[in-house]
Amino acid sequence: MPKPNLLITTDVVDQASIQVLSRYARVFSSTTLDEPSLIQLLPTIDILLVFSWPTFLTAENLSKVSDLRFIQSILAGVNHIPFAQLDRKVMVCSNAGAYSDEVAEYAWSLLLSASKRIVDFHNAVKTEEWTLRRTLGGKEVTILMGGKLGILGYGGIGSAVARIGEGFAMKIYAYSRKPIREKGVRSFQGAKGLLTVLAESDAVVVSLPLTRDTSKLIDADKLGAMKKNAILVNIARGELVDEPALYEHLKANQDFRYATDVWWYREGRESLKTSHPFFELSNFIGTPHVSGPSGLATGKPVKFAVENVIRFLRGLKPKNIVNPAEYLVTDRQEY
Amino acid sequence: MPKPNLLITTDVVDQASIQVLSRYARVFSSTTLDEPSLIQLLPTIDILLVFSWPTFLTAENLSKVSDLRFIQSILAGVNHIPFAQLDRKVMVCSNAGAYSDEVAEYAWSLLLSASKRIVDFHNAVKTEEWTLRRTLGGKEVTILMGGKLGILGYGGIGSAVARIGEGFAMKIYAYSRKPIREKGVRSFQGAKGLLTVLAESDAVVVSLPLTRDTSKLIDADKLGAMKKNAILVNIARGELVDEPALYEHLKANQDFRYATDVWWYREGRESLKTSHPFFELSNFIGTPHVSGPSGLATGKPVKFAVENVIRFLRGLKPKNIVNPAEYLVTDRQEY
Repeated sequence: MPKPNLLITTDVVDQASIQVLSRYARVFSSTTLDEPSLIQLLPTIDILLVFSWPTFLTAENLSKVSDLRFIQSILAGVNHIPFAQLDRKVMVCSNAGAYSDEVAEYAWSLLLSASKRIVDFHNAVKTEEWTLRRTLGGKEVTILMGGKLGILGYGGIGSAVARIGEGFAMKIYAYSRKPIREKGVRSFQGAKGLLTVLAESDAVVVSLPLTRDTSKLIDADKLGAMKKNAILVNIARGELVDEPALYEHLKANQDFRYATDVWWYREGRESLKTSHPFFELSNFIGTPHVSGPSGLATGKPVKFAVENVIRFLRGLKPKNIVNPAEYLVTDRQEY
Repeated sequence: MPKPNLLITTDVVDQASIQVLSRYARVFSSTTLDEPSLIQLLPTIDILLVFSWPTFLTAENLSKVSDLRFIQSILAGVNHIPFAQLDRKVMVCSNAGAYSDEVAEYAWSLLLSASKRIVDFHNAVKTEEWTLRRTLGGKEVTILMGGKLGILGYGGIGSAVARIGEGFAMKIYAYSRKPIREKGVRSFQGAKGLLTVLAESDAVVVSLPLTRDTSKLIDADKLGAMKKNAILVNIARGELVDEPALYEHLKANQDFRYATDVWWYREGRESLKTSHPFFELSNFIGTPHVSGPSGLATGKPVKFAVENVIRFLRGLKPKNIVNPAEYLVTDRQEY
């Protein structure tokens, strides 16, 4: 039986990994092929190993990959994959967990920055708008220790966020599809469970995948259910939060804080341009989706993805198989 | 035997605490007395409970407190106390430990903000100087997990910083006067020990008291011994670090970062005005000494200080007795 054909569409995969893959498949790299050769190759390809979705795989070109059976994403999420254009027989795997430790650490960085108002204070000292001994009676900063930490989505990132939270002695309230049985974690499911987590928590970290069900999950009602001085951290996807509702909520509640590394979509892609002037608000912190690259630099995401492709090539069940029905049709590129 | 006379020079002590103190002492409050009554009272005072050093206790007025035996500070540090003007028989107690958890949490907030360059990235997105997918090849952010954390001064704050560090699986390198025997902590003493901690650590938190020995401890040589991409966090006292040396070091080493809540002295007082333009540097984060008030708001510092005064009043040995010889003569007011 001939080896299956594997096309790698990114240059982030190291040579050692390519050699290991070559034991199980004939490996091609789109970054070393010219367009005509690539087009000619497409009908023979069984497996795609992608970082974000490659621009050359337009609907037309994708239709030529008629033997395609398996797609592995090196990005954690798969909402960049054009599910609507894929045949039902194609198995798609996310890279959930590969960036978990690094993104969880980033989540804590946003959470602590917001709780201590680091950005606002730094800029206030810089512009001489703050003097020593000016006091808000202890409301300057929020103490997290001993408080309640809500975690929406208790996968790799969510559970890593909880693990770090142990050092802060925070009570963990996890919202997830399946019940979580972990010591020290209170587990909640369903719409009512979500509302309880939001209402009880002093800080909430969003680490959900973006699906049909979770898009704009955090809307005006959910924000309204939260504590007036709560901190909301988003390290998952901007679109999980309703943009206008968040803006109004931040404006009306100065003690409420939102810190994010992820952004809303403009014309089908994540964009730093927002429809509302969030940066005018002192209770908003935004960074340009940088939690991913640092994770990538550890080498773990490539290693995880390659291991999963090998699992498939060896006839084993791969990890992180996604349900296409849950995903929106997008051409979005994200970490 | 008559009760000793206790003068409280701040309004942060609550009524319940004053009532408890009244069982052991005649309690006076300078905030409810006019100047002449206060002056008349001074020769009868045995004990002072101060927040920062009160302005009315000038050298002249202090000399009138001839029976003074005990001073308890509600601030953690005692470098606001005019030791040179005190009789040797006066026992002075700091409030070390009272703010530990809150300040340690703040230290982590600065450490994570610096490691993820939160302030710089936020401002770069705000001013549209950064675009999505611009990449520094994973150098965007520093991963702390699994790295080495140096802690200079392993008292209440230092050990609380280490405790939180467990969640990040960091190896703890503690520099302290006495050896630390704690699981997972490598203990270092002396000048050579300090250099080892500085050279080995990926991040260093300064939580030392400011004394004759520690003033400007972190000078050009010490900075030069550190990793080029290390992160230095100061939540203790600005004067522990040599100001011009730090500025030159930050300018010459863009990957080195300094994050501080504490500032250098100008005319004998902590001041947000610096002699060098630190805020022009992207590897500098500065906040206006706000870690203290939040700790105060928890009520713990007053509780700790009052308990210590009662210990003294009951003839027990108070905690946190300081050695005046170690302290510089200052009129500095700090948390």
